[in-house]
Amino acid sequence: MPDYKVYYFNVKALGEPLRFLLSYGNLPFDDIRITREEWPALKPTMPMGQMPVLEVDGKRVHQSLAMCRYVAKQIGLAGSDPVEELQIDAIVDTINDFRLKIAIVAYEPDDMVKEKKMITLTNEVIPFYLTKLNVIAKENNGHLVLGKPTWADVYFAGILDYLNYLTKTDLLTNFPQLQEVVTKVLENENVKAYIEKRPVTEV
Amino acid sequence: MPDYKVYYFNVKALGEPLRFLLSYGNLPFDDIRITREEWPALKPTMPMGQMPVLEVDGKRVHQSLAMCRYVAKQIGLAGSDPVEELQIDAIVDTINDFRLKIAIVAYEPDDMVKEKKMITLTNEVIPFYLTKLNVIAKENNGHLVLGKPTWADVYFAGILDYLNYLTKTDLLTNFPQLQEVVTKVLENENVKAYIEKRPVTEV
Repeated sequence: MPDYKVYYFNVKALGEPLRFLLSYGNLPFDDIRITREEWPALKPTMPMGQMPVLEVDGKRVHQSLAMCRYVAKQIGLAGSDPVEELQIDAIVDTINDFRLKIAIVAYEPDDMVKEKKMITLTNEVIPFYLTKLNVIAKENNGHLVLGKPTWADVYFAGILDYLNYLTKTDLLTNFPQLQEVVTKVLENENVKAYIEKRPVTEV
Repeated sequence: MPDYKVYYFNVKALGEPLRFLLSYGNLPFDDIRITREEWPALKPTMPMGQMPVLEVDGKRVHQSLAMCRYVAKQIGLAGSDPVEELQIDAIVDTINDFRLKIAIVAYEPDDMVKEKKMITLTNEVIPFYLTKLNVIAKENNGHLVLGKPTWADVYFAGILDYLNYLTKTDLLTNFPQLQEVVTKVLENENVKAYIEKRPVTEV
């Protein structure tokens, strides 16, 4: 088995789906959490100067979706043929679009601009995505695609806390089928064990 | 061979990498270009109400990177094992990050905000990405990853016109190794044939 290391700040955010996937598949990994003080010295050693980073047998790669897809292949959650892989990738990219639309507003530095954009986000964007995804979850028997567990479910469960943090809401309150997707992931014994031992962080 | 249809507006933009890949691999496809007048009636029939869409034997999927990755697998440009696939995905996602950073500024509706963001984009973001990518292209013998042709090269060549349009520049002027990546793709006979017959569009 390869030696896996995850480098990220001590936050869930973009690193948590990767940590969830490694845990889900029971692949041991070093969960390395970098402090803000350590980061400047480490930054030049990371691809594109970014984290999260996955190190596989000493080789460092970045890009959270690419890393998650790779781990998903190792643990049998990436689909069984190119058409299944395509369908999983499409739903994951849809969740990522949703994240980006939220992040653009949450990280808007100008308060007046932010307030204006927040109205569209809250009244249009968020209900649009969650309603669509909830229907998809219902049609797929409590999963996000293919009617079976895939890394799309684990990715969604892993990124949800961050989306709730960015929107200062509990996004799934009125979306029980989506909540079911998350619950199924969180019921995985290995994910449960990871969550019990992970550091408590706000983000 | 599956029956492929590409649905998109009559623009290059996010559809062109997909059209390039299908062409590169000599996979025949219906290049369906929807007018603004036709779109409202068609929108509800498209996944998430978005285009570009790829129809494979009557089944419609969306998400431009997911579709490109799928086509790349059909034409042998997607890497030969999961580690190669990971490395390709990471560079493609980096190009996509670059596109998103440009698009956020280009589509900013507030002129004063746009002007401010344009300074950072022009002086920091664009040189950062292009310098990094140019070094990568040099190290990879005129390719973006693995020292051989992959769908990352074709994706980059396909999206470049759109990036130039959004930034109102010729991005690669001072980046000859990146220009070489693009040139190699454009020299592919099938891509050349597609470009000769495609409609002339500004975007």
